[in-house]
Amino acid sequence: MDYKARQERLQTSLHKNRIDALLVTHLSNIRYLCGFTGSAGALLVSESKCVFFTDRRYAEQVKEEVKGAKTIVSPTGPLSSVGEWLKSNWKSRSQRLGIEAESITVGARQRLAKALPRGFLLKASPPLVERARMVKDKNEIGRMRDAARVGAKIFDRALETLRPGISEMEVAGEMEFAARHAGADEMSFPTIIASGKRSALPHGRASQATIPSRGFVVCDFGVILAGYCSDETRTVHVGKPSREAKAAYEAVLAAQEAATKTVKAGITAEEVDAAARKVLKQAGLAGYFTHSTGHGVGLEIHESPRIAAGQKEVLQPGMAITIEPGVYLPGKWGIRIEDTVVVTNHGCEVITPTSKELLVI
Amino acid sequence: MDYKARQERLQTSLHKNRIDALLVTHLSNIRYLCGFTGSAGALLVSESKCVFFTDRRYAEQVKEEVKGAKTIVSPTGPLSSVGEWLKSNWKSRSQRLGIEAESITVGARQRLAKALPRGFLLKASPPLVERARMVKDKNEIGRMRDAARVGAKIFDRALETLRPGISEMEVAGEMEFAARHAGADEMSFPTIIASGKRSALPHGRASQATIPSRGFVVCDFGVILAGYCSDETRTVHVGKPSREAKAAYEAVLAAQEAATKTVKAGITAEEVDAAARKVLKQAGLAGYFTHSTGHGVGLEIHESPRIAAGQKEVLQPGMAITIEPGVYLPGKWGIRIEDTVVVTNHGCEVITPTSKELLVI
Repeated sequence: MDYKARQERLQTSLHKNRIDALLVTHLSNIRYLCGFTGSAGALLVSESKCVFFTDRRYAEQVKEEVKGAKTIVSPTGPLSSVGEWLKSNWKSRSQRLGIEAESITVGARQRLAKALPRGFLLKASPPLVERARMVKDKNEIGRMRDAARVGAKIFDRALETLRPGISEMEVAGEMEFAARHAGADEMSFPTIIASGKRSALPHGRASQATIPSRGFVVCDFGVILAGYCSDETRTVHVGKPSREAKAAYEAVLAAQEAATKTVKAGITAEEVDAAARKVLKQAGLAGYFTHSTGHGVGLEIHESPRIAAGQKEVLQPGMAITIEPGVYLPGKWGIRIEDTVVVTNHGCEVITPTSKELLVI
Repeated sequence: MDYKARQERLQTSLHKNRIDALLVTHLSNIRYLCGFTGSAGALLVSESKCVFFTDRRYAEQVKEEVKGAKTIVSPTGPLSSVGEWLKSNWKSRSQRLGIEAESITVGARQRLAKALPRGFLLKASPPLVERARMVKDKNEIGRMRDAARVGAKIFDRALETLRPGISEMEVAGEMEFAARHAGADEMSFPTIIASGKRSALPHGRASQATIPSRGFVVCDFGVILAGYCSDETRTVHVGKPSREAKAAYEAVLAAQEAATKTVKAGITAEEVDAAARKVLKQAGLAGYFTHSTGHGVGLEIHESPRIAAGQKEVLQPGMAITIEPGVYLPGKWGIRIEDTVVVTNHGCEVITPTSKELLVI
């Protein structure tokens, strides 16, 4: 990963965002900028310097991981050592320190303010690193393809396992085991295996409930491979589906495909969302599509942009997003179909390779 | 779980903390107070009311889960609907709204401030719910024992798997699979299997590195069962340990046992930490013990109190804490031994049942 280039791009954007330095505290942003994968740290990026602060637990790890930044290991924790470093090293009269308002807590902000030398001004920064991260480079897209491939592979394991009478958790367990064997760091999120009536819960993570003899099973799963997340959902049907169930599945699939066809550079996020919603409206199911169409994915499972009504973000080549319409009939059943796609100039590359035909088990 | 009693205890503490209501946004605190297990919500607790706000994805789930609180499902998200609710329902002239400074982000605080009716004052609240959560009730201790038992069981699986030449990830995969089979919701944290030189990384999560033919392997693992976390570490040795390695292991074990013996109601957290440190100092290893002795554990893997130097918190019966001294020789090896214990009036109950004798594989 070209950490130096990422740092430089951020450095050149500071001035026009009216800050002299940005204190990066969101862990995925830190990883993106300098490679650190631990759970405690802060990266100070000024126009000429990058300094990474962490605590003693990571003294060894920083040597292996951190690129392009001076590292300071402090016994007192990152925020107070940021203050000390600024005291001795900051030369400019301009002292506007940007903070990441969407990740730093009110408490941490207070502690930071106390630790700063006189004259420093804390300013909520726009999400500069999140914006940079939206567009993936070649290297990142390679990793996302690899992650998506492993994701698809573990779904094959789910299909071998899934049958009436076994628990949702057992299915999830088999998938997670297969993920580890394929080298995944961990799962992107708690695996969702939601069967029968539970499939109507959009976030119904695998439970001790057993797969019923008839009904939909929503399988939403992802792995993290070399830091990058996969995200995919397939819905299968156990037993013979009713005509109504079949029709609803076809409608969700048509919505998913319509949205996917809309994706290309220059289109806005809300246009993609509208394309899915339009198809479901025609099928009389729009009222049951209770979430947005998708989201960015990369180092985190949920990133910018949001693919939702009202989102004016223009898609750019290299953005990785999910397309995942769903319909949920409370107490009855739910269906969701999700691919991860990478935006190109003329369309998109679907990186989740699993078939979307309705599978009857 | 007796949610009503928990809510009432919080309600009676508001006045003396000079707030009229607390907006609970930390998800584990929400779960503790009303049972909700989803990922988006806010619980408003005033002296007479509990109101839970979430978004439409959770419309079904709240019906199953939320106890003792009126629930409001909003299309616009929890924070803005808190504002709307206060507009129509708040009758008192006193309008001091407490926020959880250690969990709410600067950005969320700004959005909340904007959504509030005129006159409301946001005040950083002390960690009222975290303090209540430190002391577990009978029901919770039962769940923690169950989680610890499953945790110990998956370590048995690790021992069956662990041998030179297989990867750390495969060992972790076997443990996670066993955890799922035993009904675990998920792992408490990414499983740490750190072998050979990697054992010197206190947070060396399982990697593709293979177990070497000789050296320590630190295994730090936990499961979440019915919401409650287990946490346990054992260090085994592959091949014959050197005299030095053996002596260091015995020193860490002695430190761990000394600290455990110190634990009882009325003792401060720093006294427990000091007990471990004293033993390692006598062994000439104190400089390699680079983290604190332990932490609270419960709904979250890291909770209050911290068992560290300078921590004056007095231990109370029902607190669940870890005791986990370790020594780490960079580039060479590391050793950590960790139990979870529940504080009692006259000592503590060790709930992690695994033997601590040095196991040679």
